[in-house]
Amino acid sequence: MIIVKIGGGSRINVKGIVIDLATLDERFIIVHGANALRDKLAEDLGQPKQVLTSVKGYTSVYSDEKLIDVMMMAYAGLRNKRIVELCQQNGINAVGLTGLDGKTVLGRRNKGIRVYQNQKQKIIRDFSGKPQSINKGLLTLLMENGYVPVITVPIIDEQNCAINTENDDVVRVLQAALNADTIINLIEAPGFLEDAEDEDSVIGAISAGDLENREAQADGRMKRKMMAIRKLFEYRASRVIIADGRGDHPVADALQGKGTVIQ
Amino acid sequence: MIIVKIGGGSRINVKGIVIDLATLDERFIIVHGANALRDKLAEDLGQPKQVLTSVKGYTSVYSDEKLIDVMMMAYAGLRNKRIVELCQQNGINAVGLTGLDGKTVLGRRNKGIRVYQNQKQKIIRDFSGKPQSINKGLLTLLMENGYVPVITVPIIDEQNCAINTENDDVVRVLQAALNADTIINLIEAPGFLEDAEDEDSVIGAISAGDLENREAQADGRMKRKMMAIRKLFEYRASRVIIADGRGDHPVADALQGKGTVIQ
Repeated sequence: MIIVKIGGGSRINVKGIVIDLATLDERFIIVHGANALRDKLAEDLGQPKQVLTSVKGYTSVYSDEKLIDVMMMAYAGLRNKRIVELCQQNGINAVGLTGLDGKTVLGRRNKGIRVYQNQKQKIIRDFSGKPQSINKGLLTLLMENGYVPVITVPIIDEQNCAINTENDDVVRVLQAALNADTIINLIEAPGFLEDAEDEDSVIGAISAGDLENREAQADGRMKRKMMAIRKLFEYRASRVIIADGRGDHPVADALQGKGTVIQ
Repeated sequence: MIIVKIGGGSRINVKGIVIDLATLDERFIIVHGANALRDKLAEDLGQPKQVLTSVKGYTSVYSDEKLIDVMMMAYAGLRNKRIVELCQQNGINAVGLTGLDGKTVLGRRNKGIRVYQNQKQKIIRDFSGKPQSINKGLLTLLMENGYVPVITVPIIDEQNCAINTENDDVVRVLQAALNADTIINLIEAPGFLEDAEDEDSVIGAISAGDLENREAQADGRMKRKMMAIRKLFEYRASRVIIADGRGDHPVADALQGKGTVIQ
């Protein structure tokens, strides 16, 4: 089994990805983002995203009720349904699901983020959290009957509220339950870069044991991504491929070893 | 079995509806609209909906690719996922589906609408059509495993493209396959009105045999609605209840005979 994570950047070639997936013999599921679409929609609606900076210096998107509304429109609405449509056009009988649908992805809501406001510390609580488990029964039911789940955020928290989370963490809890052999992570770069500014500095291979060192080397989102990837090996992944989602044949190229192969 | 159609008006009490549904013993599925949300979103994005008038005088929303995008955001995204969330909060294990997901609702795309443009006749083809059939297998699979389908547009056409359609017609093809006993149609009026301008003129009961006369009496959307309702009796409905979706307990009230009961 393969888990295919499609990044939410605007330059990702979703059509090329789906055309490639249609030729696979192996069973697969799709997890996708939509951050570019979400940011554009939020701008267009006059409510640009706000970023919180914790007292420790970490940044995160402030996920209030309105941002969850925008996420539902961008991720669960437009991006998910256009991917499902593309799948159907290529013979993949896709079913789009957020973590809310059939409680596909259960999470725990964050207690709050400690920030500075007017030189005072304050706790801000939003609708964000971490995925904890999946509804394996529903996903298996669908897959055994020939359907391909196409999963995205939001997920559902312990009070049955919609919350935002990182899709890399959704992949992690899927892997914990489904134990896929291969995870393909399609991003807007040719792989894991030695120098984040230089697309020619792709590292072709990383041993799973070396991931912790690489994590220390990365910044921001890529650092979080590397940490999530390291966990996949704890759940029996044989290989994780970080590959370019922008090419003509992103999945075929990834499976032929283009990008960064971690094993 | 009950099919519950939730109208897309802004004053529909979705929470009250879901709370009522949670107390039902009978199996049910939900079909919902989101036209108020769609229109607002289209306005907010600076692309207000355009209405086509056919040479015969019928009007319809011009469903170009951009309108389908907006529909995916409003119907499949925000409205569908907030209804699913409300269901989960009330113990209903809902799974949201558009007609695209697992080809739940298959339709045929309209050939084109004949309109006048600069005094000349012209055919305009958009992404709209009529539902023809449903994927009964998928809906049964979900229902037999304890999930409640929450269905909305768009649906999928014969070329696997997303198309717009009337939710009343979606209810019709669902009924053709599922043969529900009761269909509840929750709208922004207390029922079928003798005088469309007077909310006190509700007709409490209509015999199924009398529907054709009533159709002749109605205008615009209500006329189309009455025609779609008439078809439900061809597919073994015992009763159709047109009831107010704005009250505190829309479903409980409807099942107690408030509104217009057609049988």
